[in-house]
Amino acid sequence: MKRTLYELTGKDDRRFSPYCWRTRMALAHKGISVDYEACCFTEKDKIAFSGSEKYPVLVEGDEIVADSWKIACYLEDTYPDKPSLFGGDGGRHMAYFLNTWTDTQLHPAILRTIIWDVFQHINDADIEYFRADREARFKQTLEALRDEQESRAEELEKTLLPLRLVLKKQAWFGGNAPSYDDYIVFGALQWPRSVSPFPVVKPDDSVYEWRSRMIGLFDNLADSTTHYDY
Amino acid sequence: MKRTLYELTGKDDRRFSPYCWRTRMALAHKGISVDYEACCFTEKDKIAFSGSEKYPVLVEGDEIVADSWKIACYLEDTYPDKPSLFGGDGGRHMAYFLNTWTDTQLHPAILRTIIWDVFQHINDADIEYFRADREARFKQTLEALRDEQESRAEELEKTLLPLRLVLKKQAWFGGNAPSYDDYIVFGALQWPRSVSPFPVVKPDDSVYEWRSRMIGLFDNLADSTTHYDY
Repeated sequence: MKRTLYELTGKDDRRFSPYCWRTRMALAHKGISVDYEACCFTEKDKIAFSGSEKYPVLVEGDEIVADSWKIACYLEDTYPDKPSLFGGDGGRHMAYFLNTWTDTQLHPAILRTIIWDVFQHINDADIEYFRADREARFKQTLEALRDEQESRAEELEKTLLPLRLVLKKQAWFGGNAPSYDDYIVFGALQWPRSVSPFPVVKPDDSVYEWRSRMIGLFDNLADSTTHYDY
Repeated sequence: MKRTLYELTGKDDRRFSPYCWRTRMALAHKGISVDYEACCFTEKDKIAFSGSEKYPVLVEGDEIVADSWKIACYLEDTYPDKPSLFGGDGGRHMAYFLNTWTDTQLHPAILRTIIWDVFQHINDADIEYFRADREARFKQTLEALRDEQESRAEELEKTLLPLRLVLKKQAWFGGNAPSYDDYIVFGALQWPRSVSPFPVVKPDDSVYEWRSRMIGLFDNLADSTTHYDY
């Protein structure tokens, strides 16, 4: 069956969307192969058929599923005999809290820290859109945000604290093996890794060590697109 | 078998510890009865036998378990045939993230908002200890924190956002029924409810509505100690 994942790309094959990485990893976890269709922010006509304006969009035969959370639930329900993403219903409902916390707390803290670097790596066609949209969202210019990187990085440290403490106690967010929880958080860190030389995590940190294990999964899937090495 | 929960109390039977409420609710979820032994902050000699300086401590026959997370795991492992707190291993590992996030992000945001009210409701014997310990922790006087209540409440709103969004989509953090995840977050809200007239949650909010359902659990267990009605 033909299966396509429409995902966001920047310059030089930088696939930086944290949401698309959640889905990439979830598909690999289920052992399901997929073709990637790379799109810019401003190529939304490519996914207009889905009714969504956001990436990722998964097309599988006649099925069209937009939104990374819905895709994860779709994969779990459609392929119950393949390795579970959630480890049961309790796990699925709890993963939704992590999903929501990551969207509303972790992602903004990361974006504030690396937004200038994202801006440097998007396609030329997206430059105008990105500046207008993000400056309106943050009520600051991109240059002002760039100049605040150091203090923003300090705030990000606070946001990372609960992740750090959990990973001191268990190897994966899912417990003894990676689960969709791990892919949610990994997407957030693969995003800066794709576009920014700024080390949002550093060695001698439980989050950094866990990220190294994540990069090694599925034949180093996370190394298969352009990224910074740190 | 004799079973005793050593828990923190303030004036007038105000059982305000969020950690003790996690355990109270977990015991009720398992259908396990317990005697409560109320202690002040400065009565730690009462729990010296446990090797812990913090409440709650559960004593069950010869077993002594300190720390609300360890107690939850102990109850789940000791009573596997009673209703599950975690809904499986995946759920347990994910609950640990919520536990850690609540300890490190939600609790400080709540405490900064209501610390003066906590101070008004602790036992006289604890006043000196509480002021010295909390002022050192926050590097501010209690009076200065009191005067910032409004701006602190605004920051708390941001911290509550992921909880609010999850509860717009599902009735309980555990999914279709309450689980330990619900007790973790409920403890955080029963704490201000026990000592503060300041409404940290208000009607027409998914968190408020969920809290009302939580208060109704186990024959209104959360109404069995002195509290503010809002």
